[in-house]
Amino acid sequence: MRLRDLGEGNLIRRIRERFRNPAIPVGIGDDAAILDLPADHSLVYCSDLVAENSHFIRDIHPPDSVGYKAVAVNVSDVGAMGGVPMYFTVSVAAPGDLDLEWLDGFYTGIEKACGDFGVILAGGDTSSASSIFVDVSMVGRVPAGGAVLRSGAKVGDGIYVTGALGGSAAGLELLRKRTLDAPAVRRHLYPEPRHKVGAAVRALSHAMIDVSDGLSTDLGHIVEESRLSARIYKNKLPAAQGASELQVLHGGEEYELLIVAPQLPETIENVPVTRIGEMVESIDGLHRVYLDEAVLQPRGWDHYPTNSSA
Amino acid sequence: MRLRDLGEGNLIRRIRERFRNPAIPVGIGDDAAILDLPADHSLVYCSDLVAENSHFIRDIHPPDSVGYKAVAVNVSDVGAMGGVPMYFTVSVAAPGDLDLEWLDGFYTGIEKACGDFGVILAGGDTSSASSIFVDVSMVGRVPAGGAVLRSGAKVGDGIYVTGALGGSAAGLELLRKRTLDAPAVRRHLYPEPRHKVGAAVRALSHAMIDVSDGLSTDLGHIVEESRLSARIYKNKLPAAQGASELQVLHGGEEYELLIVAPQLPETIENVPVTRIGEMVESIDGLHRVYLDEAVLQPRGWDHYPTNSSA
Repeated sequence: MRLRDLGEGNLIRRIRERFRNPAIPVGIGDDAAILDLPADHSLVYCSDLVAENSHFIRDIHPPDSVGYKAVAVNVSDVGAMGGVPMYFTVSVAAPGDLDLEWLDGFYTGIEKACGDFGVILAGGDTSSASSIFVDVSMVGRVPAGGAVLRSGAKVGDGIYVTGALGGSAAGLELLRKRTLDAPAVRRHLYPEPRHKVGAAVRALSHAMIDVSDGLSTDLGHIVEESRLSARIYKNKLPAAQGASELQVLHGGEEYELLIVAPQLPETIENVPVTRIGEMVESIDGLHRVYLDEAVLQPRGWDHYPTNSSA
Repeated sequence: MRLRDLGEGNLIRRIRERFRNPAIPVGIGDDAAILDLPADHSLVYCSDLVAENSHFIRDIHPPDSVGYKAVAVNVSDVGAMGGVPMYFTVSVAAPGDLDLEWLDGFYTGIEKACGDFGVILAGGDTSSASSIFVDVSMVGRVPAGGAVLRSGAKVGDGIYVTGALGGSAAGLELLRKRTLDAPAVRRHLYPEPRHKVGAAVRALSHAMIDVSDGLSTDLGHIVEESRLSARIYKNKLPAAQGASELQVLHGGEEYELLIVAPQLPETIENVPVTRIGEMVESIDGLHRVYLDEAVLQPRGWDHYPTNSSA
């Protein structure tokens, strides 16, 4: 059965039945959802989109991974502020001749993400389009005044990273060769955001970001925003199994957290946390990332690579 | 200049500079925005997407209208709950060879919408894609317990509509013939959401919806959700100038409000409000809309029309 044989009204009814949740006052099926936030909390709010042929290939990526990942990346962003993710919307545009099996698989991934991350689908939109496009927005909570920004790093702070790096990029490489059954592939398809670590280190941390664009690029954001520099050490970087040095330094879609703090324990929420370097003063006002003694240039993912770097 | 000549990092920097707003604790440029909601309020939360060739044609619709409308439709949804719109995210996917002039025009429309509706751009995402996709999500506030749903209509309530109907559909018809300078065209391109009316009638109303899919379809949602029927009168329907009867009954993208209430004044927030009928008991459990004595079938917009109705 094709999407256009179902019709938009029936599609929305199906989604609404599947994601009905008595825990929220008003969910899918009105003009907007009505939700409650605990007192003395601020809202954490973000959105992340997934476009066919930019983020996934229909022939390669299973549909449930597309749904799962679209939620996971937003969970990761909320966690990187020290927040707790709560509610999200999903807007989906897709061709009318799309097989309904794809959409069912997609929503199976969304459903699994709801269970794994404790978040609730609160609304969204559907439309036809020439290719598949998914946008997820998410709201979460953080105690008022408690969010961890990119800009708070101080000289002498340690730079920590959760888990291991390079696994998602290594997985994508395997997937392109049609290898499906490997830990790195699972990591690429069904990333594990570290939001629980993010919330746990909130009061201990000065700055935080998730590694969605690669270590070199994302640590670059911390040094830019904090107006300092960072020095990390090659022999301290935790590499995922099978990941190359380039993948560890620049591979994106990791969703590990980069945490800047005076001192962190070695394990938080059952996730290993590794100190990879420290924040240092900038020289001549140049905010840089150093890998041992050399300047590390950002080489993460750019959806519109400039001509010079393409 | 093309989008890919600018690069994603530069694009985000441009947006960030343009929409910097000291009124919010953390806006664009971190993993997520941090926002505050007044005490004793619930969150109103929704999203609406705009896809090229489904919602707009690049050769016909000016780019600023695409941006303006993407925000306006969400403002309308928040207003239709009786809420006050506050913050939004914009995710945009576009081809790398898109002229930057298009994007600049698009963000000019977003900026104008911020001014007109008093909302703040808090975040978003960008990506490449084969055609243009825009998704806007929005959060607003409503006093706790005060939201107006689709399900609260009571027998004997009046059915009211703001402004006039059919104008947007009439405008689209003119636009397809390349007529740009007409009130109906402006109404189609730069809709005026009635969120201020929605907030003003909050305590007076039993049910509310915005007319985004056409009167027949949207009043159909009220009767479905309220488990009642509705009778409206042809000679009471306020028609926009130049709109045909079919456009009045079924034309979408109006963003007028359909309000069900015991009694409303004739003008609210300087907008005329017309009583077009009343809620009645359903016969044999069939929740229907009657136009005078005949059953009015929903014929509004469906992005995936089923084969039977196509």
